[in-house]
Formats: sequence, C-alpha cells, structure tokens
Amino acid sequence: GQPLVVIAGLNVLEDLSMAIEVGRHLKAVTADLGLPYVFKASFDKANRSSITSYRGPGLEKGLQMLAAVKAELNVPICTDLHEVDQADPVAAVADIVQIPAFLCRQTDLVVATARATAAAGGLLHVKKGQFLAPWDCRAIVDKIGDATGGKAITILCERGVSFGYNNLVVDMLGIGRMKDLGVPVTIDATHAVQLPGADPRGNSVATGGRREGVPVIARAAVASGADGVFLEFHPDPDRALCDGPSALPISEAAGLLAQLKAIRSAVGGA
Amino acid sequence: GQPLVVIAGLNVLEDLSMAIEVGRHLKAVTADLGLPYVFKASFDKANRSSITSYRGPGLEKGLQMLAAVKAELNVPICTDLHEVDQADPVAAVADIVQIPAFLCRQTDLVVATARATAAAGGLLHVKKGQFLAPWDCRAIVDKIGDATGGKAITILCERGVSFGYNNLVVDMLGIGRMKDLGVPVTIDATHAVQLPGADPRGNSVATGGRREGVPVIARAAVASGADGVFLEFHPDPDRALCDGPSALPISEAAGLLAQLKAIRSAVGGA
Amino acid sequence: GQPLVVIAGLNVLEDLSMAIEVGRHLKAVTADLGLPYVFKASFDKANRSSITSYRGPGLEKGLQMLAAVKAELNVPICTDLHEVDQADPVAAVADIVQIPAFLCRQTDLVVATARATAAAGGLLHVKKGQFLAPWDCRAIVDKIGDATGGKAITILCERGVSFGYNNLVVDMLGIGRMKDLGVPVTIDATHAVQLPGADPRGNSVATGGRREGVPVIARAAVASGADGVFLEFHPDPDRALCDGPSALPISEAAGLLAQLKAIRSAVGGA
Amino acid sequence: GQPLVVIAGLNVLEDLSMAIEVGRHLKAVTADLGLPYVFKASFDKANRSSITSYRGPGLEKGLQMLAAVKAELNVPICTDLHEVDQADPVAAVADIVQIPAFLCRQTDLVVATARATAAAGGLLHVKKGQFLAPWDCRAIVDKIGDATGGKAITILCERGVSFGYNNLVVDMLGIGRMKDLGVPVTIDATHAVQLPGADPRGNSVATGGRREGVPVIARAAVASGADGVFLEFHPDPDRALCDGPSALPISEAAGLLAQLKAIRSAVGGA
Repeated sequence: GQPLVVIAGLNVLEDLSMAIEVGRHLKAVTADLGLPYVFKASFDKANRSSITSYRGPGLEKGLQMLAAVKAELNVPICTDLHEVDQADPVAAVADIVQIPAFLCRQTDLVVATARATAAAGGLLHVKKGQFLAPWDCRAIVDKIGDATGGKAITILCERGVSFGYNNLVVDMLGIGRMKDLGVPVTIDATHAVQLPGADPRGNSVATGGRREGVPVIARAAVASGADGVFLEFHPDPDRALCDGPSALPISEAAGLLAQLKAIRSAVGGA
Repeated sequence: GQPLVVIAGLNVLEDLSMAIEVGRHLKAVTADLGLPYVFKASFDKANRSSITSYRGPGLEKGLQMLAAVKAELNVPICTDLHEVDQADPVAAVADIVQIPAFLCRQTDLVVATARATAAAGGLLHVKKGQFLAPWDCRAIVDKIGDATGGKAITILCERGVSFGYNNLVVDMLGIGRMKDLGVPVTIDATHAVQLPGADPRGNSVATGGRREGVPVIARAAVASGADGVFLEFHPDPDRALCDGPSALPISEAAGLLAQLKAIRSAVGGA
Repeated sequence: GQPLVVIAGLNVLEDLSMAIEVGRHLKAVTADLGLPYVFKASFDKANRSSITSYRGPGLEKGLQMLAAVKAELNVPICTDLHEVDQADPVAAVADIVQIPAFLCRQTDLVVATARATAAAGGLLHVKKGQFLAPWDCRAIVDKIGDATGGKAITILCERGVSFGYNNLVVDMLGIGRMKDLGVPVTIDATHAVQLPGADPRGNSVATGGRREGVPVIARAAVASGADGVFLEFHPDPDRALCDGPSALPISEAAGLLAQLKAIRSAVGGA
Repeated sequence: GQPLVVIAGLNVLEDLSMAIEVGRHLKAVTADLGLPYVFKASFDKANRSSITSYRGPGLEKGLQMLAAVKAELNVPICTDLHEVDQADPVAAVADIVQIPAFLCRQTDLVVATARATAAAGGLLHVKKGQFLAPWDCRAIVDKIGDATGGKAITILCERGVSFGYNNLVVDMLGIGRMKDLGVPVTIDATHAVQLPGADPRGNSVATGGRREGVPVIARAAVASGADGVFLEFHPDPDRALCDGPSALPISEAAGLLAQLKAIRSAVGGA
C-alpha cells in the first residue's frame, strides 16, 4: 500500500520565520516516519466572520513567503485561492492548489484553477462543501476532468458536513464513497472539529475542548481508509491570529503522526 | 403592517421576450393584489453541476436585458452576482443586488457588493448559506454595516439549511431569529424545495413532486412572519433551461399570491 | 373543507380543578370559533430525564380524573399510554388514544392499542418518532390496519424530527407526505419547539424564547395543510410541574386559535 | 490499557445449533486474540416495521436457548428486553442486559432493568437513542445510579444518530464525550450502518453496500477510543431472518477482530 500523505503546516501565514520553523519541524518528523510531506499555509482567509479579522499577507507577499519556504526546505507547497485571477500565480508556486469548501461548486473558479494547475504540473486539492454528500463530488471530479482533458489531478478532502446548527460531523462511511470516484481522499481533521458560526473566543458554550477532537478525527479517518491527512499546527496555538482553537501545538505532531502511521499499517494501507 | 413584498420572475434569463412576458404578468397580478413587486432573473448560473449546462447570457448581455425589462415595465430589478468585478455594473442596473447562498461568507464579494449597492441607492438581498444557523447571519449584517458606514440596506433570505444528504429543510422558527437581527426577511420558496446534488432530470428517486412543495413553503413562511417571498416562474417549466423542476407555471402566480396575501393578513402583517 | 381539529389541554394532569378549568375555557373558545375540540392531558410522563421528576397521577387516578373531565364538560378525551397492559383501560375512557413518539415503532404496544381502541370505537393518535421520515409512517399505518382488520382509525401527528444535537425541526413538506398515506395529520406545536436533552430549567443557553415558537409552528403547519393542531396550555406556565417552558398561557388560546382558523380558511381548508 | 471487549453473535435467535455454532467460532477467534468475549442474541425483535416479520423465539424459549449456549460454551451472555416484566427473568440468564435505543428514555423500563441486573450481579448495556446527543446520556447514567444506589453497572453503546431522513451517522467525537460520563463505551457497528425506515430488501436505492460499512465504523470507533465493539454475524447473511443486509459473514470475524486489536494497540488501548 501507499504511505499516508501528510499535508500540514499553518492555518494562515503570519511571518516567514514561523512558517519555516513549522515546516522544518514537520519535514523532520515525517522524514523520520517515512511519510510524504507537503507544507500548507494560506495567504488569505477570505471568509472570516468579521471584516476586521486578520486575513493574512495577501496574494503577492504570501506567494513570496511560500516560495521562500519551498526554497529553504525543499518541500512541496499547498495553498488555497478564492478568485479566478489567482489561479495562474498560485499554480506557479503551489504544487497542490486548494479550492475552499464554500467555493467547490463555483464553476469558473474550479475550471480556471484546474487548467492553471494542470498546466503547471500540479495537483488540485478540493475541499468538499459542508453542504454536499460524498457522491455529489462526482460532479466536481467530472468538471475538472472536462476542463483539463481528463487529467487525473484531483484529490478530494473531507472536512465535515453540516449537522444541525453550528456543528459539523464527519461521516466515516463517506470516505469510501469518495474514494469510489477514483480519486485519493484526505481528511482535514482541523476544520472538521470547528464549530461553524460560533465564535471560539466568545462566550458561546459549545466550543470547549474541540482541539482535542483533531487527533480523534484524524485517527478515525485513517482507520476508515483516508489516503492522507491535512492538519494545522502552530508554535503557540492560543496566540494564533486565526483559528487557534483548532490548531494543534507543533510539539504534538510527532506523536500523532506515528499513531496515524500505525493505524494505516493496521488497516493495510502501508 | 407592511404588505408582503414579491420578488419574482425567472431562474435565469433565456430571451428578452420571455422575460418581459413573465414580468408583465407578475406586475399585473401583484398590482391587482396591492403587493410591491420586484422582477428577478439571473444572468449567469455560476455553480451548475456540469460544465456544459446552460448558464445564461452572461454579465454584459444580461444586464442589457434586465435594463430593457426595467424600461419596458417600469419595475425594480433584482439579480445576483458572483465576482467582485461585477459589483459596480450590476449595482448600476439592479435595484436589489443579490449575494448567492454559497458566497454569503466571502468577505471581498460581500463588501464590494455592499459598497456598490449603497452608492447606487439600492438594497442587498443576501441568501443565507445552507450551512448557516439563523443567528450566524449577524456576522453578515455587521459586515455590510461596517462596509457601508451603517447603511440599512440588508434583506436576508432563507432558502433552506442542509438536512442530511441531498436534502434541505426550512426551519420556520429561524425566520423570527433572522428578523431579530433588525432586517427584513424573505423566503426563497423555489430553491428551498430543491434537492441539492441530485439531478432532478436523472433517475434519482427522491425528486418527484418537489414543485408542489413551493406553495407549501411559501405559505408556511408567510404564516411564520416572512416579510417577502421570492419565487421563480416559467411559461413552460418543463422546458426551462435551468431548474425547471422547481419552477412554477406562470399561470399559478395569481392564485398563490392571493393565498399568501390572505395568510399575511391573518397573521397581522397587512 | 373540514374545520381544523383542536386537541388541547394540559401536558400532564396536576389536579382535577385545574383540568376542568383549562378544558372549560378551551371548550368555550373552540365553540365560539366553530372548531371541534378534544381535551388532552397525560396521566404519566414516562420518559422524564430524572427519576425524581413529577410524572403525574398514574393510570388509575389519572383515568378517574379524565372521566370526571369528560362527565363535567361533555368533551372527547385524548391521553397517551406506554405499556401494553394500559391499552384496555385507557381505551375505555379516551376517545383518542395516543402513542408516544419514542414508542411508535414498538409493535406490541401499537397492536394492542390499536385493537383496544378499535374495539372501543375510538381513534388512534400516533406521534411520529423524532427519528422517522414522513414516508416511514406507512409501516405504522399498515401495522394498525393489519391489527384491526383495516379500520381507518389512525391520525398521524408531526412533532419534529432530530436536527443535529438538542434540536428538532419541523419539515413543513412532510405534512403533505404524511397526508399522502391517506390519514389525517395533526401538528404538535408544543413538543416541536422543545429542545431535547437540554434541561429547560437548567443553565443551558439554548432554551430561551422557545415558547414564542409554538404559535409560529402552529401557524406554519396549518398553512401547510395540517388537519388539526395539538397544543398544551397551563393557567400559569412558569409553575407547571412538567414542560412549563413550552406551555402557552391559557389566556393566549383564543387569539391563536382564531388566527389558525383564518389561515386554514385562506388555504381552502374550511 | 484494557483489551477491547467483543460483544458479538446473532441479530436474533433462529435455532439453537446456529447460535452455538456462531458462539463457538467467535469464542475461539477472540481467545486466539486475547480479547474478552460476550455472546449476543435477541429473543424478540419488538420493533419490526411489519406485523408479519420474524420476531424470534420469544422470552421463554429464547432464554432457554441462551442458557443452553451459556452452558455449552461457558461464555457470558448479552440480550435485550422491551418490557418491565421481562427484567427479572432476563437478568437471571444474561450477564449483560441491554436496553434498546428507542427505549433508553423509558424510566420504568430502565429502572426495573437496572434493579434486576444489579441484583443479579450483571451489567447494563444501554444503546444511545438515535435522537440523543452524547452528553444527554448523563441523565440515563444518573437514572441508573439513582435506581441502584450508585452501582457502576452501566455501559453506553453508540449506534448512530439521526442524520436527515433514512440515514444515521456516527459522530466519532461523541465517543469521548460519552466516556467523559465515567462509563465504558461500545460501538454497535452493525446497527450504525442500517438505513432506518428504508426496506433493505426492497427497491429503495440507497441501501447498496452498507454491509461493507460495518468494518469501517468498527475500525474508526476503536481508533476514536471505544472500549468495546458490538457486532452481529450470521453463517449465511443473505438468508438471515432479520437484518441480514447488515450482518457480517462469520468467516470475516477473525480478520476484522485482528485489525481492531491492532488499531486499539496503536492508540494505546492495550
């Protein structure tokens, strides 16, 4: 079997030295375990609840930072985009270009990103919308195939589906249904534990203890056949500028990834 | 009380004469009932499942058609957009500019559209995402307020929330929660009955009889306090180029709107 | 069309004088409106969260109280049961015997109650389980038909379906699907607004303002075609021994029922 | 850590020789793996959709069969009950007495079963209702504690929660929340994959391939920290008299249980 792919890094770029620090650590940990590694960080968080929230360095500066991480660490890069105009510049830097979940049905964005990514020799990481069934992803896979002349560049990512209000649930049976579409499937354990719409820093009651859910979802999804795992870390999660409550401390990476490797081995994946 | 507002027309623009025919009929019907009327049609369906589906005339030709409807019928116009660049030209023609449900959390689009719409003296019709709780709309209302210096231009639209796979449900209690945010609330009864992800023309079994649900949702929502109703009609729904299975025949407009007016009267709305 | 049926009274029997007071008031209000009236109260709340909660007077004393209400007011009686052994004594007093939602799939209880009720000339009011789809009720209707030699004694009652955790939602499209089974359908607007699992007296945050949802659900369901409404009142809801937070003050009965009658009239029901 | 507990056997008793055959095989497989084993079979399926479906041998004959299995194989026994009157006779034979999911909120049944089970020195296996949140189980645990003077006899079992219509989902984060109540938690992977309300033998489209989901749910739940697994097997699932479509062939027991043991080892459980 194939080894578990690890797409991991930061929720959003803060400064270059932190990005390199996190990437260097994750590269070392995954190398020890013999797992393929891709560094991930966003340059723009385009759907923050508030207009005044930190969004990241933006396209130009962000891509420069990602290129610097790549040059420094010699690792492939994954980042996400939100507008048609970003497809070419992002595909020039990122090895894996990511479509956000809310945007996975926007034809123009998916088509432009697929074409730019295919032309650059990269892969496309599509987060499944919180409003989609596993089998609904067939339309997305077909759309990318139609746009690229049938190139097999799609990876689907499960990140939870709407379950009542202000909650998501990961349906572990869905991972197999997504793999049935003929593509690799990853689990975004970080966003799957987020409580949508509830401010994790506010006084909403339901947000306690979700960070501890990240390893649970990751382990369960690998046990269910996921081919890769998507995880966000931070050197000091409680001071992260975005989504700190679901970020794992970087110190937990080695232990968790070793567990995931052992589970994948138990289910015959590697 | 205020009379029920009617935003109604076509799912997507096909040809100008059909748009005028539908708008003329709806203008006459609403005038008879004493209800305010806004003509609605989309110029681009940007999230069709398939890359080969009909999407509409596009921005330029579509706005020309909408301006022609406005000139011919002297009615306000509602249409939706999908990209930041479309905000100014759309706000120049449309009296009510609509943000699609999947895009309601995209900060750049919401902000650009709010500013363009406020500058043009229009209103903003924001479809609530299928992944949002009613109270989550507060962040959207605040974002628009922040972007426009506090102008009260927002109308929220309920169109159903994810309920398991390939289904939506309208929570009638949510209409009041959205009104609690201090904005008018409409019901999009047409999209609320759609079965997401399932092809309504295919052999999926769950799609029968949904068109008959449109009047049910509209009646229930008005009984629950909705201030307006959003409805899509077609002269011949089974030949519509998009979303025909949820479109009502134009011949049913008068009867349904009369019922809705009577219900609103029963609940003290007018 | 048929007039709207009103099944209304107390959540649980407390003392006889209160039951008669509530029943007398509701009888007068419904008589003024020309609506058929059935007095409802439970003798035992068999699934309270805590073992120490008030459950009611029990079978023997409760049936005596219900018989006294019937004798005093000359109205039909509706009450619910929980065990096979209760079927005969309950059917001897109640004109409408009710199966609780959690128990609607228990074959022995449904069959025994159906037979006892049919033998006594009564009707069966089956609450749809929170875990059932509207069309799943066909099996229940068939089971009752099989048990009674095909007697048409079944009324189905919608009281909400599980929607995430600690929440229910009423799918207004489901009312029509239940009526498609050939039976009358009522809406239990009182239980539909309860937040399951959350203690309405505790410090759980989600419970505020639900009582105000009762009229909303009732109005929406009648607008959607419900044939009857099930409502619980109390002279002083905040002092009710069970489920006070969802009980309406008896003083609100006249206004709400007049509204419901007007809505039913608007949709062609009477 | 503790080894994974295996509660496994037949959905419903058919004949004694099959019960012994299945129990003998599972005893041997679990002994090889060093896992504690409990034989499970029901004597009555009390909530079949149809009145004419096979329900099992009934209380008296069923308990005789279970006692014979226990005598023949020298294994503890798990079976479920549905009425207060069954508590004493069932607790006299079963080492683990099970409360069905639909009945987990029925106070009289839970209390009578808890008392009979505690008196007989057994344990109580409570299936979490499809309509409950993980934390709602606190009320059940407390109720059992109140009924037994605080005896720690409760095991909670996750079997999926309502997710839209005719579907369940297992929330892997819920397993930890149930363990937080201070009790062991098992996963019923067999019932968790059932599609409620849809006839698995009929022409409903959604039922394909669910049996293959049983190992997925079992693996994911053990990776998420479940202390035990509940599984139903059959020598020839396609000829099973009840719930064959979710039963695993007995020949798959050894491979699956070895995998589950390896996953538990990977997550530190044994």
